[in-house]
Amino acid sequence: MRKIKISGYGMSLPKNIVNFNGQIRYRISGDENQLSLAVSACKKALISAKKEIEDIDCIVSASAVGIQPIPCSAALIHEKIAKGSDIPALDINTTCTSFITALDLMSYLIDAGRYKNVLIVSSDVSSQALNSKQKESYELFSDGATAFIISATEEEEGIICSLQKTWSEGVHATEIRGGLSAYLPKNYTEATKEEYMFDMNGRDVLSLSIKKLPKMMDEFLNKNNLKITDIDMVIPHQASVAMPMVMSKLNIEEEKYLNFVSEYGNMVSASVPMTLCLALDEKKIKKGDKIFLIGTAAGLTTNMLYMKV
Amino acid sequence: MRKIKISGYGMSLPKNIVNFNGQIRYRISGDENQLSLAVSACKKALISAKKEIEDIDCIVSASAVGIQPIPCSAALIHEKIAKGSDIPALDINTTCTSFITALDLMSYLIDAGRYKNVLIVSSDVSSQALNSKQKESYELFSDGATAFIISATEEEEGIICSLQKTWSEGVHATEIRGGLSAYLPKNYTEATKEEYMFDMNGRDVLSLSIKKLPKMMDEFLNKNNLKITDIDMVIPHQASVAMPMVMSKLNIEEEKYLNFVSEYGNMVSASVPMTLCLALDEKKIKKGDKIFLIGTAAGLTTNMLYMKV
Repeated sequence: MRKIKISGYGMSLPKNIVNFNGQIRYRISGDENQLSLAVSACKKALISAKKEIEDIDCIVSASAVGIQPIPCSAALIHEKIAKGSDIPALDINTTCTSFITALDLMSYLIDAGRYKNVLIVSSDVSSQALNSKQKESYELFSDGATAFIISATEEEEGIICSLQKTWSEGVHATEIRGGLSAYLPKNYTEATKEEYMFDMNGRDVLSLSIKKLPKMMDEFLNKNNLKITDIDMVIPHQASVAMPMVMSKLNIEEEKYLNFVSEYGNMVSASVPMTLCLALDEKKIKKGDKIFLIGTAAGLTTNMLYMKV
Repeated sequence: MRKIKISGYGMSLPKNIVNFNGQIRYRISGDENQLSLAVSACKKALISAKKEIEDIDCIVSASAVGIQPIPCSAALIHEKIAKGSDIPALDINTTCTSFITALDLMSYLIDAGRYKNVLIVSSDVSSQALNSKQKESYELFSDGATAFIISATEEEEGIICSLQKTWSEGVHATEIRGGLSAYLPKNYTEATKEEYMFDMNGRDVLSLSIKKLPKMMDEFLNKNNLKITDIDMVIPHQASVAMPMVMSKLNIEEEKYLNFVSEYGNMVSASVPMTLCLALDEKKIKKGDKIFLIGTAAGLTTNMLYMKV
């Protein structure tokens, strides 16, 4: 077990709420932006953990889309919450599952004694790139940010096992192609503008997920000598309204997973940590529970992580 | 010591060479792009390591600027070299020092037995964003890619110690502001175009570096009970022609560091691993040597890493 504990957490939602047939979605407006949401979530996490920024040994931004091409998002967040300090800042990215990947990677450094307290913040404002012609994604995504402070612990708690897989046959099923080196901003025109927008083939993503996930789940459980009943609560990425179908394929019962798609939508990288926030806030998980974080991401990447909280 | 060894490496340079007063720089042209350079470097690294892609347990893209906003660059590279496999793919980013950060982080996972062979590839094509009005950066940067395969080992070799610091008072000294969520591609116009270009205040970067680096170096050496003479060779980021001045401030003698700025320029994230490639190729370092990787990055971030090869 890689011993870590959750010291605190915070989430930040835009003020503006939109509603598509009863599905609530959040959209930044006015002064709000990716950085302001990320900073607000970090500040709440520090308060929740009863820590000062000086207690933090590393700031990790674990988001899908960055704030700027240069520097990394963590450095821009650092300026707002840690200016004057020398806390290292870095980005880790596996799109929608960036939080799980960051938690997974940083747990090794905490367990090895390199860092005591790591701030991981996930923020995405997909509304800025949504294509109103693609109703499925336009009405699914929300903006938001979530931050967690993960700390060293003496207790028997932490990450028991984790697994990531990437199947690149799905790499073009979820994309924003334009904005960086492949499609430069200077080539933006009325004719090319959709290259710079979110482009998801939901059917392809779902069909590849259903083909790959049950086998990966079996491998994960078998390799680690686990049964599905060893999981107290599943914290899934809020990928889409198809969540119940995917959970059923993984033999996860309805009362064992948290579905907030109607209330919050898919917040890209912020969804998994936000689901974990809500689970903690609503006392759906308690000290000592064994939880299972799972998410699919553009790639197609899937992360699974089993931890005792 | 986090036990790892270098199993193989490869670098990829664009065909087109430009020359500014005797300083050689590389620029992509024709079919070349960030992805093609990265893929070529990965293939060379696999050949050099005498490994097949099936031997690789994780693909890490450690670049400053991504290929697309979504998905992460490692997934796009995965499609070209690992399609049909389930090798996990992820990005790690601290701009120019991304390779050192990735090596640093992934060494914990290799040492803990999570992965045996990790492919780390750094690629950047800054020429696509350079501003011809900023002569200093326009004539300094090159495009390129470098890949390393890092493996578990039974020998007494690997990372002895490492340190990262970020001082965000320098966060705006090196930027590409536009292309992602802060400045959207749709706002690109003749009037705003410089927001989407590389913008570096070399004087600010240098003055902050000189203020911070000697203290960090002292801390690094003292904390780890090292003397400057314990370093056999310094592998620095090829940041600028000011390298000799910075090295002198760190009390590193001229024959102890590798300066390829005239021959290759600053290749952003690809510079540190490329310098390591050249050092290995030119037998400037030999088995058992203790090397010191050091680089400054937009942030301002600095990474130091001391390892036995």
